[in-house]
Amino acid sequence: MPRISILRSRVLGFPGRMAAAREPQLVQPPKGTRDFKPEQMMVRKRVFGIVSKVFEQHGAVSLDTPVFELRETLTGKYGEDSKLIYNLEDQGGQLLSLRYDLTVPFARYLASNKVTSMKRYQIGKVYRRDNPSRGRYREFYQCDFDIAGQFSAMIADAEVIKVVVELLDSLDVGDYQVKVNHRKLLDLVLASCGVPEDKFKSICSAIDKLDKSPWDKVRTEMVEEKGLSPEVADKVGEQVSKKGNATDMLAYLNAYLGESQNATEVLEGMETLFGFLEAGNCLHRVVFDLSLARGLDYYTGVIFEAVFTGSTQVGSIAAGGRYDNLVSMFGGKEVPVVGLSLGIERVLLILEEREKANKVARTKETQVLILYLGKNMHKQAFRLASELWAASLNVEFDAIATSKLKNKLDMAGKSFIPFVVVVGEDEEKKGVVQLKEIVVKKSQEEENKQKEEIPRNELAKTILSRLQK
Amino acid sequence: MPRISILRSRVLGFPGRMAAAREPQLVQPPKGTRDFKPEQMMVRKRVFGIVSKVFEQHGAVSLDTPVFELRETLTGKYGEDSKLIYNLEDQGGQLLSLRYDLTVPFARYLASNKVTSMKRYQIGKVYRRDNPSRGRYREFYQCDFDIAGQFSAMIADAEVIKVVVELLDSLDVGDYQVKVNHRKLLDLVLASCGVPEDKFKSICSAIDKLDKSPWDKVRTEMVEEKGLSPEVADKVGEQVSKKGNATDMLAYLNAYLGESQNATEVLEGMETLFGFLEAGNCLHRVVFDLSLARGLDYYTGVIFEAVFTGSTQVGSIAAGGRYDNLVSMFGGKEVPVVGLSLGIERVLLILEEREKANKVARTKETQVLILYLGKNMHKQAFRLASELWAASLNVEFDAIATSKLKNKLDMAGKSFIPFVVVVGEDEEKKGVVQLKEIVVKKSQEEENKQKEEIPRNELAKTILSRLQK
Repeated sequence: MPRISILRSRVLGFPGRMAAAREPQLVQPPKGTRDFKPEQMMVRKRVFGIVSKVFEQHGAVSLDTPVFELRETLTGKYGEDSKLIYNLEDQGGQLLSLRYDLTVPFARYLASNKVTSMKRYQIGKVYRRDNPSRGRYREFYQCDFDIAGQFSAMIADAEVIKVVVELLDSLDVGDYQVKVNHRKLLDLVLASCGVPEDKFKSICSAIDKLDKSPWDKVRTEMVEEKGLSPEVADKVGEQVSKKGNATDMLAYLNAYLGESQNATEVLEGMETLFGFLEAGNCLHRVVFDLSLARGLDYYTGVIFEAVFTGSTQVGSIAAGGRYDNLVSMFGGKEVPVVGLSLGIERVLLILEEREKANKVARTKETQVLILYLGKNMHKQAFRLASELWAASLNVEFDAIATSKLKNKLDMAGKSFIPFVVVVGEDEEKKGVVQLKEIVVKKSQEEENKQKEEIPRNELAKTILSRLQK
Repeated sequence: MPRISILRSRVLGFPGRMAAAREPQLVQPPKGTRDFKPEQMMVRKRVFGIVSKVFEQHGAVSLDTPVFELRETLTGKYGEDSKLIYNLEDQGGQLLSLRYDLTVPFARYLASNKVTSMKRYQIGKVYRRDNPSRGRYREFYQCDFDIAGQFSAMIADAEVIKVVVELLDSLDVGDYQVKVNHRKLLDLVLASCGVPEDKFKSICSAIDKLDKSPWDKVRTEMVEEKGLSPEVADKVGEQVSKKGNATDMLAYLNAYLGESQNATEVLEGMETLFGFLEAGNCLHRVVFDLSLARGLDYYTGVIFEAVFTGSTQVGSIAAGGRYDNLVSMFGGKEVPVVGLSLGIERVLLILEEREKANKVARTKETQVLILYLGKNMHKQAFRLASELWAASLNVEFDAIATSKLKNKLDMAGKSFIPFVVVVGEDEEKKGVVQLKEIVVKKSQEEENKQKEEIPRNELAKTILSRLQK
């Protein structure tokens, strides 16, 4: 140990081996990550509760998978975004990476366990080596709901979109739209414009940027980087600008694409989907939008994205689609799946902005605070607290010998603790306690009128019955 | 793409880029990790609920920290176990490691936010590159409860041990003991045997192995590896074999250690602690055990470990102690902390072994299954389901066109779904539904007697009122 540390440890009075500490600059969490503090945890628990309830209303079961997967499980699933995957160091044994989303682990789970039909939800953290910015983190929660299995055409797709609407309505996020499109329809439209088949994928990922970049920039990418002729690019630009309600768009596309078998199949599928959404009373939220492309490679059918249209600038708050080939990439049977991912961090951003005005500071549910007056009464306080814990009450006791009664009562008020029990030596001898009910303060009299003497062995019963009122 | 993949993709009928898949051996989760399946998630949710309730009864607030920390935050905190820490690959930017426990991140949180007083709980996964074995995983949950701050002597320590007892009793794990010791007492005992001060730490970590290794082996380690004389080792062996109830052990130690100021202080502290535990009605669970050493470096005071004494071989199921110097290692003020960590995976192992006999397969809470008879009735089923979802019911509908009514009714029974709604074309015309209440089958008659015709617009109300009974 260097001399200076020995000196420091002697001065501060703790053992030398503990004092060999690092310097102060190391105390923050890693870049792009956050500690969730008690007040945030209260909001999160409430929000996750609402989300789970919606998923469970639809009969979904809960699943949890490891935070890391074999590196090869993630390889080749995310296209250009693969560079954002966190790898673990090679410390011997298997090569591992942190999960990038909950979709690929779910597909891997289905393959691992040879499951061919399952409706599951998962709420968990995912990891991306992205540049942190407002509402964008390197560690964040996703809430996923997926339906795996072979069902009647479009009914699972419709249920997933219905769940998106129920989630956003239950969370009361405000105004939003659900953009809907179909990967195969996009391919047909691209073909109709003269895009060669081997460029579908790269042109799709250019179209995907239209919600952030202006058309001019996307057009340049199509022509200069991806080798499309300017005429074809302009035709694509014209088509992907089309959006509207289901009826109008189906009429337009039936006319535009003509009667090829492929077009008829896809458009009939979309008609079935919209029929379900109308029956499920959520078609009014839907916009049929040809510019919706979704970046990820694995989608094969219906795709959708819910976009917040209120004042907070967050963009997409839920998204998903059908991916029928992903499970078989893990060596098993093909299992068709359609699912959604709720961007819960952005939803929380919206809710937090709105709730800033009427913020409630309560971070715990303590019901009783026990205060003992006089010295050396901590053992009695602990005994009384233990009696109330045994009666299932949430109890804290004063564990600081020195501070003043007034301060302690203020603390109870600030923490929204509804009952304070005060005991001194007199009460202890008589076998009673002073019970004080803290009411919302309107006037000084009201605050103070609630103090009563209660026999100690009736305390738990008394508090429990008043809490039920 | 190699020729064979093109061929395979054509034969299987899906796009070539999706078929360029890896071979089947890659579909499992990483070694030492598990997927938590729906039936396990049901148990976990129940158990985490019980654990959270106990923590909240004591006024603890909830906290969540990132899964990884700066590598330097973890460095030098775990002694010999540091080799088990998972590092992330250096992909540019900060060097990161996965958290090894929830204690060091909590201490880092207190330092980061300059918090000097906090009662918090955290339930989360931690990561160790250990050899997987029964009940030992590389990714597993811990449930931590810690009290940070300056309070009257031993009252926080007593509350933490009280919480251990409440947790294990609420979880109904069966027989267990809580071993208690004090780091400074152990130092005094080692000094009394003639162990030089600079060997306290290494001899402590040898003593820590006594719950797994026989004395002979530990003695050899002390003498041959750690350079203790055989006579001193034998004296240590004699002392650390002492254990018993609080009164007997305090009498023994008062006599054995004599009246040095250090000894008197520590023993008075232990007496205060046991006084609290008696007042809190949990002293009968406690054994004062001089062989308890706890491996980790950071403990500075009371240490404890709950050991399961029932038939399942799991050993320690909860442990903790006081660490007063850890927070200041992150550059801030010294904040005294005492806390516990519940080994929830081992508790689950005990509960699962016991519950194997009366296993319940229910993995979800679906209340209503909707079956439509006849072709092309899916849209009607979706509409009816949407009406019931809107009434907050948990509803699934039959989304497979082909299977038989008998099979579907069996499915409802197996899934413990209490209500089945059957609708055919006749019912649809008349505006009614057939409601079937699935009762536990005792005889064939009983199973079938519950079918009734209900007006469709009264369905939600009828089911809700029956569920409340």
